[in-house]
Order: sequence, then C-alpha cells, then structure tokens
Amino acid sequence: MVVQKRFVLVKHFDGMPKEGDLKIVEEKLPALKNGEILLEAKYLTVDPYMRPYSARALKEGDTMMGEQMASVTESKNPNFPVGTNVVCSPGWCTHSISDGKGIRKLPSLPKGLPYSLSLGTLGMTGMTAYFGVKEILNPKAGETLFVSGAAGAVGAVVGQFGKILGCRVIGSAGSEEKVKYLKEIGFDDAINYKTTTDNLDKKIKELCPKGIDMYFDNVGGVMTNTVMMNMNDYGRIAMCGAISGYNAKTQPTIPHVPIVSKQLKIEGFLVWRWMTRYPEGIKQFSQYIDEGKLKYKEHVTNGFENMFKAFCELFTGSNFGKAIIKV
Amino acid sequence: MVVQKRFVLVKHFDGMPKEGDLKIVEEKLPALKNGEILLEAKYLTVDPYMRPYSARALKEGDTMMGEQMASVTESKNPNFPVGTNVVCSPGWCTHSISDGKGIRKLPSLPKGLPYSLSLGTLGMTGMTAYFGVKEILNPKAGETLFVSGAAGAVGAVVGQFGKILGCRVIGSAGSEEKVKYLKEIGFDDAINYKTTTDNLDKKIKELCPKGIDMYFDNVGGVMTNTVMMNMNDYGRIAMCGAISGYNAKTQPTIPHVPIVSKQLKIEGFLVWRWMTRYPEGIKQFSQYIDEGKLKYKEHVTNGFENMFKAFCELFTGSNFGKAIIKV
Repeated sequence: MVVQKRFVLVKHFDGMPKEGDLKIVEEKLPALKNGEILLEAKYLTVDPYMRPYSARALKEGDTMMGEQMASVTESKNPNFPVGTNVVCSPGWCTHSISDGKGIRKLPSLPKGLPYSLSLGTLGMTGMTAYFGVKEILNPKAGETLFVSGAAGAVGAVVGQFGKILGCRVIGSAGSEEKVKYLKEIGFDDAINYKTTTDNLDKKIKELCPKGIDMYFDNVGGVMTNTVMMNMNDYGRIAMCGAISGYNAKTQPTIPHVPIVSKQLKIEGFLVWRWMTRYPEGIKQFSQYIDEGKLKYKEHVTNGFENMFKAFCELFTGSNFGKAIIKV
Repeated sequence: MVVQKRFVLVKHFDGMPKEGDLKIVEEKLPALKNGEILLEAKYLTVDPYMRPYSARALKEGDTMMGEQMASVTESKNPNFPVGTNVVCSPGWCTHSISDGKGIRKLPSLPKGLPYSLSLGTLGMTGMTAYFGVKEILNPKAGETLFVSGAAGAVGAVVGQFGKILGCRVIGSAGSEEKVKYLKEIGFDDAINYKTTTDNLDKKIKELCPKGIDMYFDNVGGVMTNTVMMNMNDYGRIAMCGAISGYNAKTQPTIPHVPIVSKQLKIEGFLVWRWMTRYPEGIKQFSQYIDEGKLKYKEHVTNGFENMFKAFCELFTGSNFGKAIIKV
C-alpha cells in the first residue's frame, strides 16, 4: 500500500502565490488494475507558466499541475516494466497510478547527465527554446537576437542556441550575478534590468547597434515595450511568456504602432504543439551538451514538501537556474 | 508656365488635425529638362496612414505626402508621352515635374470605371486588402473573419474579398448607415461600435459563435482588445492600422496574454512590400468588379482646396467610402 502526497490548490492565486494557497494532502493509493502502473516521482519541476495556467485549467481542490520525472515501481502493463524511467504529468505528487497514456519513456542520456535534465534542457523548457527559436524565429547567422528573462530555464537555452546558430545575442536578467553568468555561457552581452530602469532604451541601443532582428520574450511589460521600439523592420518576436505580469492586477500590453510601422511578425506559442517532435530537439541538445556547446544550470530544492517554496522563488528573482525538486 | 498649388505641413499634427496645420502654397514650375514630364493631378487621395506617417517621414515645411492619379500634359521623356495616365506620389499638389522614376502607368480599366479607382479598390487601399488578406491571413473557406473599420476604404474590400473566398465575415463600423451598407455588400453581419460600448464582447460572441479565426485590424484600441479575447487558438491577425490612436495622446496597446495562451500569429504590414505584385491584385480585383462580386463606394470631394477638409473627415467618422479629391 502506497501513500501519495500531493499539493492541492486550495484557492486560486491572487497576486503573488502565498502560504495557504496550496496544501499537501496524503492519500492511500488503491491496488493496480490490469494495464496500470505505479509511478514514483524522482524529480519534479516548477515553472512560471503554472501561475497563469492554473487559473485557466484548474478548479479549486484540484491537484496542482505539472510534469515530473518518475520511475515505474509496480507494473501491470507490459509496455512499462518496473524500472522504466518516464516523464509524466500527474501534477505535483509523489506517487501516481497511470494506464500509460500520455507518458513519455525517457531516452538514455549521455554519460553522467542527471535525469532531472528531462524536465529542463532536455525536456519542456529546453524544447520551448529549441522550437521557439527554430520554428518561430528561424535565425540567420549575423542577426541580432534579444532574449528577456535570459537567465531563466528557457532564456539561457535560447541565448546559447542563438550563439550556436551564429547570432549576436543580448539578454536581460535581474542581477549582476546573472549578467555575469550569461556572459560566461556565451551571451555577447547582458543587461541588468533592475539597474537600468532609467536608461533601458539607451542601453539596448548601445548593445544592439544594428537594431534587433529577433526577440524571444519571456517577460512582457516595460522590457518588451522597449525592445519593440528597437526592432528592425520585419523583425520577428517569439512570445513565450510574460512573467512580469503573472502576479500583477493589470495584464501586460504591447504597443500597437511599431507592429505596423516596422512590419513586425509576432507569434505566441505553447511548446505542446511540437510534442511529437521532441525526440528531434532532445537529440540535438544532447549532442550540444556532450560537445560542451550547451551548458545547463539547475537550482535544486530537496524534499517534496518544499516544492511550493521553490515555486514562489520563481517570481522573486531568487531562483537561479532551472528549478528542480528532488524528492 | 504652370502654377503648382501644394499643401505644405506648417507644423506637425498635435491631436486632431486642425486649421493652420497645413497651408496652400503656389509656385511657378520651371521649364522641363530632357527626360522630364509635367504631371497634372486628376484625382488625389487622403488616407488615415498619412496622419502617423507625416510625423515620421516629413519635416515641417515639406509638401504633405500622398499618391495621386495624374496625366502627362507635357513630355520630354519618350516613355511617358502626353496623355499617359499614371499613379505617382509627388504629395498633395496639383502639378509636378518628374523624371519618371517611381511612377506607375495605369492599366486600362474595365469599361465605365473611373480612374479614381486607381487610388482605391484598384490602387493602394485595394491592394492593402488584397495582399493583407491573401498573404497575411491566408483564409480557408468556412473560417470566420472579423474586420474592424469595415466601412473604410480598406475594410470594405477586405470583407468582400473574405466573402469571395468563402469565409463568414463580420465587420465593425461607426453608424447604423454603415452597418446597413456592410450587409448590402455581403458582410454576414456588422456591429455599430458606437452603440455597443457596454456589450461589445457579448455582441462579438453572438455574431461569431465559432470564435474568430482571422482579424483584419484597421483600428486598434478597445475593439482590437475585445476581438483578441474572442479569437480561436492559432488565430491570425493582420495589423494594418490603428486609426483609434492616430490623434490620441497615448498610443494604443494590445494585450500580451492571449497572444501566448491562444498561440496567435500577428503580422503588421505596409502594402509597399508588394508593390511589384500590384498588377496581380489589380487584375484580380478588376475581374471581381466586372463580375459584380466586388462593389466600391467613393466619397468624392470636389476641388483641390478642400483636400485638407476631406482629410480631417477621415477621423470624425463623417467620411463614408473611399475618400477621393477631384481636382
């Protein structure tokens, strides 16, 4: 008999997520039926998208949404023998029962790499970067790519991928430590948006002397507005997220005028649309990691009980690297 | 010796264009040199884009920008014999001298059609509709197309073209008379935005029960924001203009969140990018007009001196049909 711990949404977030919005519930799981498997979470992930999407996809009382890397510990399904490693989406829980639908078996990773990467650079956030850059921005060597939220789990991969493809890459992040890190992993330069509030436009012009051809937007708000004013004609924008507005009362907006006058092309996207093509991106990024061209950084929180704390850290800027919870 | 009358920008518009912002200047034109032609304006056009673009493209003291349909009345250029009809862009003036560069010779029009159409449905505004719909929206039969500013020179053509291509087409306009007209020319339905300020969202939902697949945006502002909230996943937006903001102190914005959550694709455009393909669009639209599938409506102002008045009418809603000035 296995006890499942799970985080339940007590009430929808209002402003910044806070204590009491989620609670942990413990429950005994029933015995497996034929065709079912028991999954034990090894790593879980918290990502900014969970803030706005919980409001749309969940009712109060539901288990909080999200992916995890898990192992099969009991099986009545021959497709998933005991020991199989998978990525699945039962939400924030330690154990779950599944009939195998919608579960992705993990490929073996290059030597020495942790399975947690399957939730980061070789998983959802990495694939967001891979397909967002490749399919939406379609960079040409020599173009200038601006990445906001550049030290985040998606942004850091976007920038490195842009460099591999031959672009000039400039990022924005929220501390000197993050700016330093971005330069270390190959960004041509980076802006600390917290210390450039009065001269952001000037700083962007200085670091992007040929204007901005592509913008990968993770943040929205003032940063996005200022970047848009510095885009070149026919510039492309991949809109991935708007973390600046996730906990705000008013939703972020973007200016209408430069879209027309600069003939910009803007596309919003959710990575799920390329789900069936994940193997292509995972293979490519595994190779880049193996060759030392693509670095990763994880921010690991130990203990399932601390998962909500790790989630809250995404919005305070204290998180640095892909947020992973090790059970 | 020919006297040219032209409108000069005295000072950049501030808010709604008003008396004194432009003035008429008269000047004798010099004799033609070899290679030059003298052009006499027959029809001129005023269009909303001139409001924002004058601020970007002109200095105070410059001739106001714009196209005209003109005839060659003297020629020292064998490519343009006397009597040649052309569309050219010398700005708001009655006569001009040109070396022929950038001048488009007019094709002969189907019987009975006025040359003023070369500034409307068979000219810049029509081509804006043709290429904006065809290249940016790329409609499939059965999809729902929403057009704002639908009774305008571009919008009315967009909607009719959408119907020809098999779409459900809904428009918005600023009077009951315009709404009636839109239904007469084939729109499935239309919204009077002036009488739906409190229930615009409800009205849009009612008229677009399957959601909106494509939005051709001429206005920006509240209309655009409300339409965006009613778009289907993977919806496409052609951003052509934002007349609601042209005379405003604050620039219009659009919401960030639905771009990502609905995976919208938004593209701003200026029709000049397809200039070399105009003959394709003009041929197609001439045929539609000839077949009775595409109606046009002109709002003709007589007298060059009244051109500025006609321009101002674009922004008060009193204009109805393609604004043409007959010299």
